Amino acid sequence: MVASIAGAANQLAGSVGVVEGQYLDLPRPVRLDCGRELDPVRVAYETYGTLNPRRDNVILVCHALSGDAHAAGISRTPPEEGTRDGFAAQERDGLAAKALGWWDGMIGPGKAFDTDRFFVISTNLLGGCRGTTGPSSPDPATGKPYGAGFPVITVADMVRVERAFINELGIDRLAAVAGGSLGGMQALEWAILFPAQVDAVVAIASTHALHPQGLAWNAIARDAIMRDPAWQGGHYYGTGRAPDAGMGVARMVGHMTYLSAEALREKFGRRLQFADDIRYTITEPEFEIESYLQHQAGSFVRRFDANTYLYTSRALTYFDLARQHGGGSLVRALEGVSARTLLIAFSSDWLYPPAASRDIETALLALDKPVECHVIEAPYGHDCFLLEEARQTPHIRRFLAGTGAGE
Amino acid sequence: MVASIAGAANQLAGSVGVVEGQYLDLPRPVRLDCGRELDPVRVAYETYGTLNPRRDNVILVCHALSGDAHAAGISRTPPEEGTRDGFAAQERDGLAAKALGWWDGMIGPGKAFDTDRFFVISTNLLGGCRGTTGPSSPDPATGKPYGAGFPVITVADMVRVERAFINELGIDRLAAVAGGSLGGMQALEWAILFPAQVDAVVAIASTHALHPQGLAWNAIARDAIMRDPAWQGGHYYGTGRAPDAGMGVARMVGHMTYLSAEALREKFGRRLQFADDIRYTITEPEFEIESYLQHQAGSFVRRFDANTYLYTSRALTYFDLARQHGGGSLVRALEGVSARTLLIAFSSDWLYPPAASRDIETALLALDKPVECHVIEAPYGHDCFLLEEARQTPHIRRFLAGTGAGE
Repeated sequence: MVASIAGAANQLAGSVGVVEGQYLDLPRPVRLDCGRELDPVRVAYETYGTLNPRRDNVILVCHALSGDAHAAGISRTPPEEGTRDGFAAQERDGLAAKALGWWDGMIGPGKAFDTDRFFVISTNLLGGCRGTTGPSSPDPATGKPYGAGFPVITVADMVRVERAFINELGIDRLAAVAGGSLGGMQALEWAILFPAQVDAVVAIASTHALHPQGLAWNAIARDAIMRDPAWQGGHYYGTGRAPDAGMGVARMVGHMTYLSAEALREKFGRRLQFADDIRYTITEPEFEIESYLQHQAGSFVRRFDANTYLYTSRALTYFDLARQHGGGSLVRALEGVSARTLLIAFSSDWLYPPAASRDIETALLALDKPVECHVIEAPYGHDCFLLEEARQTPHIRRFLAGTGAGE
Repeated sequence: MVASIAGAANQLAGSVGVVEGQYLDLPRPVRLDCGRELDPVRVAYETYGTLNPRRDNVILVCHALSGDAHAAGISRTPPEEGTRDGFAAQERDGLAAKALGWWDGMIGPGKAFDTDRFFVISTNLLGGCRGTTGPSSPDPATGKPYGAGFPVITVADMVRVERAFINELGIDRLAAVAGGSLGGMQALEWAILFPAQVDAVVAIASTHALHPQGLAWNAIARDAIMRDPAWQGGHYYGTGRAPDAGMGVARMVGHMTYLSAEALREKFGRRLQFADDIRYTITEPEFEIESYLQHQAGSFVRRFDANTYLYTSRALTYFDLARQHGGGSLVRALEGVSARTLLIAFSSDWLYPPAASRDIETALLALDKPVECHVIEAPYGHDCFLLEEARQTPHIRRFLAGTGAGE
């Protein structure tokens, strides 16, 4: 008993502690890239640390495809509408970390995003299934969930919602916008869309535009969901059936793209489920990696909405700073950026490879803008941005030390 | 008209011409690794060139996961039972080459496998859906197709069937066994199981054991099929429904693993379907790569049987020479090999990476056995073994020149 209490106390050292999910309804409709307006828009969020009197110590943290607003601490949020089971878990390394935030190692007192200094806000992104308006939210025109009637959204739309939300909180400027993967895309988009409001960008394991192989894997994952007859054209809510089979395949595909061949070799090798020998079965797992994938599929299906997956995946494939803002030129797209930029990439990340971060660095340097790019040698692929917290921390702390805010 | 006739004539230069599919029923049951016996067993095959009087100029060509016996020339084979449409097409580079054999650039007069000198035999592998006994064949116990009642097979089982078939043709020795990918696995297995009957092995873009990432992609592809409700536990024949949705996903996953990131960048980039801009759609392709994948899925589903995919994919994941024959040691597994071995790998092949061929080379060198390994720098990934015919040819011709047979 003593040992386990001590363990629990250690887990809370440097923690933001118990956090409560909050909600804010935007006062005005949001105009989207597709031309439609969305109204109402609710944003689910959490905050860590304290807003200073000058309101200039705010860091906005943006999450990736399968994340939510619960980035740090231990959640006491009751189950939410629109989630499959209200279980705000983030799987990490095959182990459900249950109520611990998905970037808990990075956000807290003395951590990379230091809550002794900064007021960190984390929102569930537009289109999400964790409290922010998304395909599982009621369409005011029908009173039923939007389903596939939800407007197709972009990363810029997500950022517009985040900005309206921040403004509504009475915050004018962000000391930093930070995120990994799709979260990093949002951070970069912020710096371009609202340069006067962003002092610094931290984009980790991210890109200015997903490469064609990444487009393809995302297309296959979405297709697996939409080919599942239980998807029912996107209108499966309330039917008692959901595209769990297709979602499982989508998750397995996605999960594989987050890991490196080296990590899989190290972690699973070709080890059999039953060490003695193979059992000659098509339907059952024979190798450990096979049952691991099944487990990943099963737990994801329980905690995530398939339509949110579709819309979010589509948004991240559209994301292309050069096309959106530079007439094909990344340099031109970044011309208006006034934020300092920190880029971190991981050597074994083949989905968001270091070359993409280097492209951004090169473009910003060509514009004589302040940027630093660090490529961390690590074997765990794209998942490094969730796993290699200790090695990212010094870069982020040093970079944020250059921020005048919060002192 | 004149131009197109001339074109057709050029296409036939160096061709084996029009070929007819043949069938042979094995006289005895085949004992399988899983303990079951298979009876009857029919083998579909084609031959190119002429068997010499000494019967020592035979090259057996083994195909990969989605192939068939039609390796060279132009097929005049009528539609077969057990295939979805009897269309013996092999897609190459997104273009259905229709009746042209899948390795036509490699097999023919003056080609890598020179039919002026060698008698080349190509069989459809055990478990296939192109005329050789497989899950879509009738189970003599029920009179209905085996479906999921077909025994789980291994690469060694495929080789046992090929050997029984060769013996039945009155052929004692093979001047060479050759193949790419799963075909190369069969060639290596031949050299171990029946060393006295194999003079040379040509294993291209192959391995002694698929790496864990390869296991995972195969597991996901199979899972996509089995999660499709139309799979019906494997007993979909005659129901009017087939797991086309799942098969499409499986094909897309497989296809992506055959291509390199570089090849996709070169071939598709991030080009949109409609060059002007995005159309904001979840369900329709937006990028060229997306519609290419849809096309790949659609054409594969029309020509291939889902259960054959499952069984063949499972067999290639089991394949592990060290486990099967060496108590975990590749060197020990290869101790009994007497064949000369030619290994070819491709720099951008991440599914069957050059390192795997190097492992085999190292093991054979440690045993002081004749082996050569060539890594060809080429950007097209695993598909190089079908595409880079011109660059493989000199290696293979030189290697086969060392074969006493056929002179």
